[in-house]
Amino acid sequence: MRFLSDNAAAAHPAVLDAIAASNRLDSPYDGDEWSLRLDAAFSDLFETQVRALWATTGTAANCLALAALCPPYGGIICHRDAHIEVDEAGAPGFFTGGAKLILVDGPGAKLAPDAVSAAIGRIHKDVHQVQPRALSITNATEYGLVYNAAETAALGDLAKAQGLRLYLDGARFANAIVSSGATPAELSWRAGVEAMSFGFVKNGGLNAEAIILFDMDLADEILVRRKRAGHLLSKGRMLAAQILALLEGDLWLANARAANAAAQALATAAAGRLVYPVEANELFLKASADEAAALRAQGAEFYDWGAGEIRLVTSWDSDPAAVGKLAAAIAGL
Amino acid sequence: MRFLSDNAAAAHPAVLDAIAASNRLDSPYDGDEWSLRLDAAFSDLFETQVRALWATTGTAANCLALAALCPPYGGIICHRDAHIEVDEAGAPGFFTGGAKLILVDGPGAKLAPDAVSAAIGRIHKDVHQVQPRALSITNATEYGLVYNAAETAALGDLAKAQGLRLYLDGARFANAIVSSGATPAELSWRAGVEAMSFGFVKNGGLNAEAIILFDMDLADEILVRRKRAGHLLSKGRMLAAQILALLEGDLWLANARAANAAAQALATAAAGRLVYPVEANELFLKASADEAAALRAQGAEFYDWGAGEIRLVTSWDSDPAAVGKLAAAIAGL
Amino acid sequence: MRFLSDNAAAAHPAVLDAIAASNRLDSPYDGDEWSLRLDAAFSDLFETQVRALWATTGTAANCLALAALCPPYGGIICHRDAHIEVDEAGAPGFFTGGAKLILVDGPGAKLAPDAVSAAIGRIHKDVHQVQPRALSITNATEYGLVYNAAETAALGDLAKAQGLRLYLDGARFANAIVSSGATPAELSWRAGVEAMSFGFVKNGGLNAEAIILFDMDLADEILVRRKRAGHLLSKGRMLAAQILALLEGDLWLANARAANAAAQALATAAAGRLVYPVEANELFLKASADEAAALRAQGAEFYDWGAGEIRLVTSWDSDPAAVGKLAAAIAGL
Amino acid sequence: MRFLSDNAAAAHPAVLDAIAASNRLDSPYDGDEWSLRLDAAFSDLFETQVRALWATTGTAANCLALAALCPPYGGIICHRDAHIEVDEAGAPGFFTGGAKLILVDGPGAKLAPDAVSAAIGRIHKDVHQVQPRALSITNATEYGLVYNAAETAALGDLAKAQGLRLYLDGARFANAIVSSGATPAELSWRAGVEAMSFGFVKNGGLNAEAIILFDMDLADEILVRRKRAGHLLSKGRMLAAQILALLEGDLWLANARAANAAAQALATAAAGRLVYPVEANELFLKASADEAAALRAQGAEFYDWGAGEIRLVTSWDSDPAAVGKLAAAIAGL
Repeated sequence: MRFLSDNAAAAHPAVLDAIAASNRLDSPYDGDEWSLRLDAAFSDLFETQVRALWATTGTAANCLALAALCPPYGGIICHRDAHIEVDEAGAPGFFTGGAKLILVDGPGAKLAPDAVSAAIGRIHKDVHQVQPRALSITNATEYGLVYNAAETAALGDLAKAQGLRLYLDGARFANAIVSSGATPAELSWRAGVEAMSFGFVKNGGLNAEAIILFDMDLADEILVRRKRAGHLLSKGRMLAAQILALLEGDLWLANARAANAAAQALATAAAGRLVYPVEANELFLKASADEAAALRAQGAEFYDWGAGEIRLVTSWDSDPAAVGKLAAAIAGL
Repeated sequence: MRFLSDNAAAAHPAVLDAIAASNRLDSPYDGDEWSLRLDAAFSDLFETQVRALWATTGTAANCLALAALCPPYGGIICHRDAHIEVDEAGAPGFFTGGAKLILVDGPGAKLAPDAVSAAIGRIHKDVHQVQPRALSITNATEYGLVYNAAETAALGDLAKAQGLRLYLDGARFANAIVSSGATPAELSWRAGVEAMSFGFVKNGGLNAEAIILFDMDLADEILVRRKRAGHLLSKGRMLAAQILALLEGDLWLANARAANAAAQALATAAAGRLVYPVEANELFLKASADEAAALRAQGAEFYDWGAGEIRLVTSWDSDPAAVGKLAAAIAGL
Repeated sequence: MRFLSDNAAAAHPAVLDAIAASNRLDSPYDGDEWSLRLDAAFSDLFETQVRALWATTGTAANCLALAALCPPYGGIICHRDAHIEVDEAGAPGFFTGGAKLILVDGPGAKLAPDAVSAAIGRIHKDVHQVQPRALSITNATEYGLVYNAAETAALGDLAKAQGLRLYLDGARFANAIVSSGATPAELSWRAGVEAMSFGFVKNGGLNAEAIILFDMDLADEILVRRKRAGHLLSKGRMLAAQILALLEGDLWLANARAANAAAQALATAAAGRLVYPVEANELFLKASADEAAALRAQGAEFYDWGAGEIRLVTSWDSDPAAVGKLAAAIAGL
Repeated sequence: MRFLSDNAAAAHPAVLDAIAASNRLDSPYDGDEWSLRLDAAFSDLFETQVRALWATTGTAANCLALAALCPPYGGIICHRDAHIEVDEAGAPGFFTGGAKLILVDGPGAKLAPDAVSAAIGRIHKDVHQVQPRALSITNATEYGLVYNAAETAALGDLAKAQGLRLYLDGARFANAIVSSGATPAELSWRAGVEAMSFGFVKNGGLNAEAIILFDMDLADEILVRRKRAGHLLSKGRMLAAQILALLEGDLWLANARAANAAAQALATAAAGRLVYPVEANELFLKASADEAAALRAQGAEFYDWGAGEIRLVTSWDSDPAAVGKLAAAIAGL
């Protein structure tokens, strides 16, 4: 009954099989047959021509792209609770060479156009204050909310009007797709997204994420930055192979559906306790210390989330029995 | 008959088995049972207490450590042909925040204490010139030469006398150990090395290298830098597991022995053509364009290395039949 | 009637005289006779042994020191309205190599220990969140408030308890000294400050600030960083000479007294309109757009400061007649 | 008889007068009347529209411009003896965020197109090696040689053909202009130079250099970088005023003529000892230790320059009597 995070779940068996199948001498780095198939595979998925590069972590994927989107002396607007602000140890500052994160508030780690506009409005247009150059959103958000196509497009319009490059942290993009019913295109380039990370590690992958570049001119720079940051694996085929395995037969969607469904099952049981609507695979519940202890006494593992709240995260392999048992435990509090 | 590089060879089956065996939910990052065993495993191997951290590439391992050994305003002395200078896309500058590589010449990418001393002597001791703070050596070198224990210790003594931190790029440390007959301790901390990378990717691993810290106080900083550089994988167990698999039963030594032996077989056949003595698993041969073409016509794949030279690299899984065939072809030129 | 800022006032005549007097061949950089006198001059002033380095701007002074106090992967706690956050174009990120400013609120740009402690308490002690390494305060603050000796010491105690290096932005240190009645020692090292900038440009200087190092071990690194940042002037004597001229006969104190007195004269006239107590040489007044226009119609120049507020800044050479006229105009609104 | 360097000479009296004349309240930073005149003044001088920004040091001017010309992951080709490589404490690495200097040899610190081409040819066109993005030349060179218009244009053609941005370190541009007889335009933009520093500190100025941007699109970025590096002085008028004073009536040319003439007088006396032709205001002479001692015994101050060589530098205010005395001493060796 482990609901700590989706980031440490086992990889899907198909992923291990794909790694094993790719374990033979081929061209190093990203010259192998699997890596060479990524552009086409993601271009199909996104219904437009894209460049697709593997990376081993979401932090690397996010910050390699952001470094190409924002100069060292620029600012990146993001939510105060965004992963790049809270959980990446200052990686954006490292990769960009010192760019500043400009923080915006909003419930559930979700950015509203008005709040972004207000933040921009507070910045003097001179050389003394850091000028925003990029806008970074996360879908699904760090609190499990989902931007639908229209919400994403509204931010895209704002970014365009303000001259900001639009980046999408898609660590849980699969969950957002499944939840919103939108197509990958609708939640990305059609809405103005110019580059994104596409998460697999939290969705059945072992250690591969993808960087998707709708502005393909960014690729040359990011390829160099990837090497320079020590992220160009010599046996990159093992990364490409697992991504292809998850794309094949829409396994990535099946996995996300399973995670989201497990979250819904818990949400139903926890109806009166939800801090945010449950739109992806994370739940934040009001629970007293005694209640949290009671759940743990029944075998549940999860994080406390500030005073009087707990966080539950489901994953592609959440055991239905465990989900059912936890749902019953919550309902019985 | 592929002798292009050892970096793209298949991983050893034991490595894939270990990854599969570790594919279950555990603590994320480096809190899993496999990662927690690394310190002890390498402490045994090095006969002293060390800290051992996994990393996915040699570039990352080298530069994470160098960033902790040299401030942004310092210099790192290394050979002009060192991997950190030639093949890492400027990663030392990125990770350190702008430190300078101070280049020293010497045959076979090997540093001699006199040449290092002379380079130091040319630097004015003022604020106008970058002052050296670290010395980085590679064993086996980029041209397949090996520092024995005494040679390493001589550089260690020099580093200590000059106030330089001593780093060892051990991408092919296994080959150096097998070749020199020295112990891991003798080629590292007993000779003054304070931190090193320990390569597995070129020796049967899939995508794991280790950073070994003899100065264990460096660990806290490097752990933060690793996260900040996007190199903290959430399922780090898959890296630790493959390292442990290669250490077990001295598989890493068996693999290096096989690669070195294959190189010796080729060296014997190429006796009159060797640019450098063959001490590890790389050969640099004099060969005219016609001769190179003749070898390729017989199925050999390898890199040209400047005018009139070719490079051959063997690996743990070099096929004895292919080695024999290539040896015969070389002998028959 | 110009009350826009103190940073663009004329230099004191004694400063120009000193520059002219130093205009002869001497050793370059900071080897001249004037530069060599700085350590002793500031050691006298601070009643303890210090190292004192000139710099041309407050931004340079602040960020050179902060880069030595905080590693690239660390955080610097400061007020949300601190100059280093708001008005230095991201210079802290540039000089430190990407360190993060951790922002704390509080009225009048003044930090309270409780607010600092709370901010520290919100940070998880792990490698995922940036850990604070330094605390930066400004005295007088950006809104003209002054930390007295006890308030400074309370922050010093907190910094020590939390393992933070304590830095003081003293762009208007002279105004704080005059206002508080404390000695330079009491507002700095006796309270735990380890390094500070000491402002002269806003107090009669032309283009010289000083970096004062109570932790003298910082000097070697900052001397190198100063050169590396292009801040080592070859004719540094012209900077040292103006600093010495302002220290001589306590001219710096006389200048600050004049500026503070002018501010008090305005404050008296604006009694009911003050947004903050007037403790140094800045005033923030409530004033409607019509009222601001009325003042401007009488010849006053100043900045609007958000909706319904204006800022007035006095300086060492504020003309008493102009001050009197503006005071009358304010009183007559 | 001080011939150590031109960088610590007195400022010309007209420069001090101009600073004094500008010592009154005006707009801060570069909004004052003097700073606003720089673009036009240099556009006249260069016979084309340029942007001109002041800076306080040559290191700052060079590296602010280079950071706009070369990305963090690029390389800057320069001579092995270039000031940016040898005498700026790694400032290019700091300002660019880690770009690499790619060093080229050649007598007298002068770059020949063939040598530059050869250096480019040695770099593999892949992501593993740092790709050159800029070419930086110094005129007059660090050894007192001068590129004439044709030589500069040849490098400009090469840079254009190779896709390199061309930068000119003009710390002693005045000496080169006087020596070559070329116009400022011919030694800069007409030859392909896109940005340059224009030195005044070594030529009668106090602490002002100019950054000249022929590619005016670079200005916005460099203005921000200047602030971010702490190089935006609040009383910038004192920098602009001294530059304008030196431009007025071609004082900068008169000063350079005086320095070059003094060097020629010494060169004539030292005819048989010259290591390089004397084309600007620096002389490098063969002189034994005894000979150097003999000169010093007669009151001359200068630097030894490696074994058996000495360096003499003249300046705008080199005393003709001292020059004559030293010339006689050299002739009498």
